[in-house]
Amino acid sequence: MNVKELVAKMTLEEKAGLCSGQDFWHTKAVERLQIPAMMVSDGPHGLRKQDESGDHLGINESIKAVCFPAGCATAASFDRELLYKVGETLGKECQAEGVGVILGPAVNIKRSPLCGRNFEYFSEDPYLASEIAASQIKGVQSKNVGTSIKHFLANNQEHRRMTSSSEIDERTLREIYLGAFEGAVTQAKPWTVMCSYNKINGTYAAENKTYLTEVLRNEWGFDGFVVSDWGAVNDRVPDLEAGLDLEMPTSFGLNDKKIVEAVKTGTLAEEVLDQAVERILNIVYRFEENRDATAVFDREADHALARKVASECIVLLKNDGILPFAEERRAAFIGAFAEKPRYQGGGSSHINASQTESALEMAAGYPVVYAKGYDTKEDQVDEELVAEAVRAAKEAEVAVIFAGLPDAFESEGYDRQHMRLPECQNYLIREICKVNENVVVVLHNGSPVEMPWADQVKGILEVYLGGQAVGGATVDVLYGKVNPSGHLAETFPLKLQDNPSYLYYVGEGNKVEYREGVFVGYRYYDTKEMDVLFPFGHGLSYTTFAYSNMKLDKTEMNDTETLTVQVDVTNTGDRFGKEVVQLYVMPPKGNVIRPVKELKGFEKIGLHPGETKTVTFTLGKRAFAYYDTDLHAWNVESGSYRIALGQSSRNILANQEVQVHSTTQKRPELTMDTMFGDIMTIPGAKEVMAEAMGAISVFDGMQGDSLGEGTGDMMEAMMRYMPLRGLTAFGGGKLTFAEVEKLLEKLRRL
Amino acid sequence: MNVKELVAKMTLEEKAGLCSGQDFWHTKAVERLQIPAMMVSDGPHGLRKQDESGDHLGINESIKAVCFPAGCATAASFDRELLYKVGETLGKECQAEGVGVILGPAVNIKRSPLCGRNFEYFSEDPYLASEIAASQIKGVQSKNVGTSIKHFLANNQEHRRMTSSSEIDERTLREIYLGAFEGAVTQAKPWTVMCSYNKINGTYAAENKTYLTEVLRNEWGFDGFVVSDWGAVNDRVPDLEAGLDLEMPTSFGLNDKKIVEAVKTGTLAEEVLDQAVERILNIVYRFEENRDATAVFDREADHALARKVASECIVLLKNDGILPFAEERRAAFIGAFAEKPRYQGGGSSHINASQTESALEMAAGYPVVYAKGYDTKEDQVDEELVAEAVRAAKEAEVAVIFAGLPDAFESEGYDRQHMRLPECQNYLIREICKVNENVVVVLHNGSPVEMPWADQVKGILEVYLGGQAVGGATVDVLYGKVNPSGHLAETFPLKLQDNPSYLYYVGEGNKVEYREGVFVGYRYYDTKEMDVLFPFGHGLSYTTFAYSNMKLDKTEMNDTETLTVQVDVTNTGDRFGKEVVQLYVMPPKGNVIRPVKELKGFEKIGLHPGETKTVTFTLGKRAFAYYDTDLHAWNVESGSYRIALGQSSRNILANQEVQVHSTTQKRPELTMDTMFGDIMTIPGAKEVMAEAMGAISVFDGMQGDSLGEGTGDMMEAMMRYMPLRGLTAFGGGKLTFAEVEKLLEKLRRL
Repeated sequence: MNVKELVAKMTLEEKAGLCSGQDFWHTKAVERLQIPAMMVSDGPHGLRKQDESGDHLGINESIKAVCFPAGCATAASFDRELLYKVGETLGKECQAEGVGVILGPAVNIKRSPLCGRNFEYFSEDPYLASEIAASQIKGVQSKNVGTSIKHFLANNQEHRRMTSSSEIDERTLREIYLGAFEGAVTQAKPWTVMCSYNKINGTYAAENKTYLTEVLRNEWGFDGFVVSDWGAVNDRVPDLEAGLDLEMPTSFGLNDKKIVEAVKTGTLAEEVLDQAVERILNIVYRFEENRDATAVFDREADHALARKVASECIVLLKNDGILPFAEERRAAFIGAFAEKPRYQGGGSSHINASQTESALEMAAGYPVVYAKGYDTKEDQVDEELVAEAVRAAKEAEVAVIFAGLPDAFESEGYDRQHMRLPECQNYLIREICKVNENVVVVLHNGSPVEMPWADQVKGILEVYLGGQAVGGATVDVLYGKVNPSGHLAETFPLKLQDNPSYLYYVGEGNKVEYREGVFVGYRYYDTKEMDVLFPFGHGLSYTTFAYSNMKLDKTEMNDTETLTVQVDVTNTGDRFGKEVVQLYVMPPKGNVIRPVKELKGFEKIGLHPGETKTVTFTLGKRAFAYYDTDLHAWNVESGSYRIALGQSSRNILANQEVQVHSTTQKRPELTMDTMFGDIMTIPGAKEVMAEAMGAISVFDGMQGDSLGEGTGDMMEAMMRYMPLRGLTAFGGGKLTFAEVEKLLEKLRRL
Repeated sequence: MNVKELVAKMTLEEKAGLCSGQDFWHTKAVERLQIPAMMVSDGPHGLRKQDESGDHLGINESIKAVCFPAGCATAASFDRELLYKVGETLGKECQAEGVGVILGPAVNIKRSPLCGRNFEYFSEDPYLASEIAASQIKGVQSKNVGTSIKHFLANNQEHRRMTSSSEIDERTLREIYLGAFEGAVTQAKPWTVMCSYNKINGTYAAENKTYLTEVLRNEWGFDGFVVSDWGAVNDRVPDLEAGLDLEMPTSFGLNDKKIVEAVKTGTLAEEVLDQAVERILNIVYRFEENRDATAVFDREADHALARKVASECIVLLKNDGILPFAEERRAAFIGAFAEKPRYQGGGSSHINASQTESALEMAAGYPVVYAKGYDTKEDQVDEELVAEAVRAAKEAEVAVIFAGLPDAFESEGYDRQHMRLPECQNYLIREICKVNENVVVVLHNGSPVEMPWADQVKGILEVYLGGQAVGGATVDVLYGKVNPSGHLAETFPLKLQDNPSYLYYVGEGNKVEYREGVFVGYRYYDTKEMDVLFPFGHGLSYTTFAYSNMKLDKTEMNDTETLTVQVDVTNTGDRFGKEVVQLYVMPPKGNVIRPVKELKGFEKIGLHPGETKTVTFTLGKRAFAYYDTDLHAWNVESGSYRIALGQSSRNILANQEVQVHSTTQKRPELTMDTMFGDIMTIPGAKEVMAEAMGAISVFDGMQGDSLGEGTGDMMEAMMRYMPLRGLTAFGGGKLTFAEVEKLLEKLRRL
């Protein structure tokens, strides 16, 4: 379809109409021109397609679909191929169901464990979030179905999400919050981007030309359409001008009228409207012209995949030799989630699961007894349930407690109030630990929880919200059918108060200050050298790995070159396992305030016992760079950078240094207030200054010591910190302001 | 003297001349009009008066004077009367020496333990800093000698101090950084205020009309003159207009010419100049006309006072029953500071001490042996010295290690690089602990140090930089002649990384962001519930105290009323001692982000064994208020405030609640973006909204549960967070924008 020609044929009203939904889930059709409607559906870890009786709030029943693990879990796989596979499958399902765009993935940074929607998000680290998102997007789009990466931008809490303003400095936006989107957009080219509800530094995301147009399109080359989160449109005409192409859901014609009027009165250029329509139609036809009539939604096969995916995402947090269980081990499965797992969160991502399987069912062949232990309806200790569980635990060799957050604790729409499990569950765990010393806790939750009992149990398995097949996946890992290989995509702090955003989350009124800046997650905990419960990147295995022969292809380089890093990884245990090799770059202590380390690469590899593979990373400028707000560009400080390889941000197994030379010259601005120390960094300045100062001998009499024994050091510091204007009075009045101005001119010419 | 008349007689050049120093230490004399010069001298814990051969950098020898404990120590006394007494003595010394203004006290907030000049400053708490400063100012000025409270404003590091900009939000400036000055200026009316070198939010302090004029004079009623820190003048004419009256030291006429020229060309109103001259002459004559010809600088008597003061400032940090020593106890005094204490810091506050006394000399009557242990010249373990010390310790019943920071570690002019003691001292302490289990460490330092050995020693005495009589004072406390009563005016964190400013101190280039906001010191540690080495307010005694009968005179009040708090304090031990009763206010969890507690009162009382005294506090609005940046005024949120009384911020012995009602109505701004939840706080809004919404039944179909089990909670949150404009589309298109605008108008009229 020649979309440009099509747009030219459309009336103003038709074009305005195309910029908002036909209903809750479709773009508008234009019968006169045979323009079809396109359906979009909620995602991102399954298809929430509302059947034809879709209501105007989008909350009625949706079709049966397969619920894959949520973002919190899939990110923990650290597995690009796995995410691609999930994406492919979702794409295929969409083709089968006639859905043109599946909404997601959601890459917002986990600023605080309290964000109600964390379970949908990937990570506290922008690189990991972006890589995982890119893989999923590529997978979906390989099936000629679009994605909608969301929620752009800086939507890191549910509290007041439609009116709050995320107040973030430029560098932090670039390095962290835009960072989560950048790689995914540039690498994977999502068909659409969904703008978020909130404001960024006072301007609604829907109306933020800086991000919707300048960054997203002009810098990153995004060429699809931007869609509003459902109801995120603020003021339709300025939003359209800022780069928001499609409003969803329908505005019932109210905003179409505004657009028509604005064009008619000349306040909106028709070209802006044409461009938006063209972008929307490009996607409508990209889907329409590449339909796969053969696609089938195979719920059985996809359920099997969901189980495999879930098992690859499970993170073994702690294992004092208790796991995996031998099949004959007499186990007590304790906790309501053993029978009815929590496997997804509430809100737009909620799937009408085609089937579910509990760990209890899937352990049917093993000697397992069950006790409910607690109820999820309310956080209330039920002494009878506890007593029953204690009896079961007493008689078992091992007690597996299925704990986690009930639905009401964690959902889209509102934030968590604290980081604790329900008290009734903590109580249960403590009681079980009193009667059985072989306790394993299996956690079902979308975001970190405090674990006051962590030292008292022998094993902890984080299964997150693992999708509809989480029960089977859990059993696979408990009994060693699958060797766990998930790693945390977020730090588990000891307590909520440790979190970097704690003091300022969720803001005051509509103002949410991101005062921790770039120090999000491990960037904070590691730089502040704080104890944590489990560090970023942490995840155990039933086998062991060793790193050797780390090599850099150079020890010195310009920031325009690339660095190749290699390391040999060996499975030193006795069973097959997968290792996630994480690469962190540790910058030198320079003039820029930076985290002590940042993730800049990761690879997941499978190794048989005794097997060795070489893992290779290539690092370009961005791996060493910070975002420079003077230059408004990525920049590298010269210095020695440490390349650290390891199994978590705290467990580094090999590291080497490389000298990186900046190819960008940054000079201090020269004014009467520029201090001597800065001036002296300019080549040739020393000589010019010496000449001028020779005349006045500023520090006559510096030998005096009435200032104390440290006078020498102090005088040296005084000299370094002195602004140029100090040459007048501190110079004994021998240089006039005019003469110092001349000196300044001379320096500027250097 | 009728200063106004005098100013009228002066020529333009004479007036311009009076706005800068005659030399390093004097204002200008005008012989034609018999206007005398006035001498000013460095302080604040002694008189650094340079003799008549004062050089142009002010670093030659000064006269012999008495060095009192530095600010770090005097604040720890928590003793207003003591500071008044010190002030009186300094005032008397100034009268004797013909000094019209002694420069100080220095009240800058201890934002980071690294600030090189912390030893001169009082506290991390603005209330304490201001109270202590006020007492000292009142004391000095009772002798008709002026003070110069400094460094105004937000000068919390030495690094780049002449060019850096302290970037601080309005509320933090008000509550913390201005807070340290406010009470002292309004209560004690210092004759002069000294502006600092740095910029505040981009504008030099010297040129900052907001603070020099609007806040200082218009709000706080300051009526003296503002003097520049030596060399702090940036651009003389704008500085003068901003409210900087006196430039120090001399500008060698360069800036006088600028002023004359500006008046002549009309860029500076002569009234501005007249006003500055009048302010300066007011003070010159206030001193001149109240000279005390009888004043004598009695160095002997003042030395004795210095010893008494020092002993009142010493903080007993730890005491596992080892202190005080019986006189016959065989002690080894170990460490160079036993023989030559570090008792003051380097820089402008450095006193040419009239005499010094070491602990070793002052313990002459006791069975004490001495071993040097380490050298202060460089941080290098001297194995011979250590071996000698170990031998001495082995043979002694108790080992007292005199440790601390050598001069080079801590000085005006540059910041500390870390928070550690010299490694050679930590090594020595560890070695001594190996051979003697009765170890006491006596610390000489101006700011907190890390104490990796804290668990291994039985006693820790913080003597700070205790002035020239610190040796005697230390012995007085060690042997129980004085019962220690000092309390920490700052938190001792476990490690530097724990400090709230750690990530951003000392800024990038000239930009220093105070991102921790109001969470300075214990406001941070206590709110984040962090472990600390010693909390704010901590200090032990050789006796014990009990609190009883805490009473509030009301349980409910308006914020316009005052609250009286009483508590009975009893000495439950067997010797005389002094207790510092600290009052903290703990605000309710409201809409404003606040520290969990803030110091709002303290009283120091002396009690004989068994004696009980009633301590009374009166709290007004400010004790409950935060600075509201919408109102640009102090404001109180309604709610339940806990009044907590205790011996430190972590050791609360009594507490009670009071309901405070705000008398200020704050209403949300009403726009199309105002969310339902905010609208509903307006009386009458519910009815207006119900009427409008009745027509549209926004949540038709809310009973659906495809969003998960938490749908109800989520929908409720969605409703609360919905902006008014949401009534259009989410309302099913039944209300037009014009109709919602009308509703908005209706709400505004409520």
